[in-house]
Amino acid sequence: MKIGIVGGTGDIGEGMAMRLSPLFDIIIGSREKEKAEAVCKCTLELCDVRGEKPCTVVGTSNQDAVTCADIIILAIPFKHLVSTLETLDCFEDKIVISPVNPMEKRNFFEFVPPSEGSAALLVQKLLPKSTRVCSAFNTIAANKWRALDEELAYSVPVCGDDADAKRQVMDIVNKVSKLQAFDGGPLAVSCMVESLTPLLLNIARYNKMRDVGIQFR
Amino acid sequence: MKIGIVGGTGDIGEGMAMRLSPLFDIIIGSREKEKAEAVCKCTLELCDVRGEKPCTVVGTSNQDAVTCADIIILAIPFKHLVSTLETLDCFEDKIVISPVNPMEKRNFFEFVPPSEGSAALLVQKLLPKSTRVCSAFNTIAANKWRALDEELAYSVPVCGDDADAKRQVMDIVNKVSKLQAFDGGPLAVSCMVESLTPLLLNIARYNKMRDVGIQFR
Repeated sequence: MKIGIVGGTGDIGEGMAMRLSPLFDIIIGSREKEKAEAVCKCTLELCDVRGEKPCTVVGTSNQDAVTCADIIILAIPFKHLVSTLETLDCFEDKIVISPVNPMEKRNFFEFVPPSEGSAALLVQKLLPKSTRVCSAFNTIAANKWRALDEELAYSVPVCGDDADAKRQVMDIVNKVSKLQAFDGGPLAVSCMVESLTPLLLNIARYNKMRDVGIQFR
Repeated sequence: MKIGIVGGTGDIGEGMAMRLSPLFDIIIGSREKEKAEAVCKCTLELCDVRGEKPCTVVGTSNQDAVTCADIIILAIPFKHLVSTLETLDCFEDKIVISPVNPMEKRNFFEFVPPSEGSAALLVQKLLPKSTRVCSAFNTIAANKWRALDEELAYSVPVCGDDADAKRQVMDIVNKVSKLQAFDGGPLAVSCMVESLTPLLLNIARYNKMRDVGIQFR
């Protein structure tokens, strides 16, 4: 199973590539192929230093990351979501994971969903009908993805309308560090998951904490 | 400091009264005074059985619970929020805690906020300007309030626009079992807190769990 990371050289994407590359075949996508190749090289070096044996890691364009992967993670900020998806195709029959949170920093961090109700529902609308979209990884901070020496002991709600796709995404989540996947229900529940991230950013800000995550219990 | 519980004989209110009565002077309010007196008696008996010494506990009308208390908890379902507040007065200069979550059970549990954005903002709009509204306790399940032998090891975001009121509410939260209060920021953040509860109900439903709570970490 190959996982493509669209935006694999960004804040979240780079850490994801580092965490996932010892577990899965990873295709790091970027608008600039050279950046993807650099992150790929860095990821391989990190695996070497840490004595981990990566599966295959490739750095390439966002389009190639979509075309060559079975499962695609959209590691892009909400503000670039529509413009990025408009330039990409070949999503037919694939599984797409949206960790995207539509939010803005005003006086505090606000949840600002699109008219579809959530970023995940917008993704499903923009992509072909045969694409099976799930939301996952929404609340894992970029710094935590990158802090390879720390376990990720968090709960991860996974929402989606296709049971098989959701099961595959939950299996991926459960393989990463100590993340624990929870079935969040249909994709329409994603709005409640996406609004968690601005809440956690507010909690961090008003309590002088960093990179706050959640556990269900 | 006296805490009045409007709806103190309901699902949430009754458990709250039991948990809070050994810690604070409690005024249990109800639409039916007799019911409040019965819950008061039951609460006192429970304290006796458990060898706890309650502060004063009184069962009375919702109006008396407001009039005689310094801090008022609105332990009522969202659907009865407006009609209940319309019948009550004497909220001037008091602190009001809203644990209210506007949600509906359709195919799944949905967050259905009023046009103000959250139940807490609606409460602030309906009450006098001098009333200081905070949201708190939104995600603690009724069953957990009542399970007196279990510790409540959960995180509780507290939102509000008045720093002193928020500090007092956080102090109350931190005295209850192992609850840990977090400053959630201004009252406008309450929408993100209130939408947590339908999310947790979905998590419980789709993962065959009961009374799911959260911890920030």
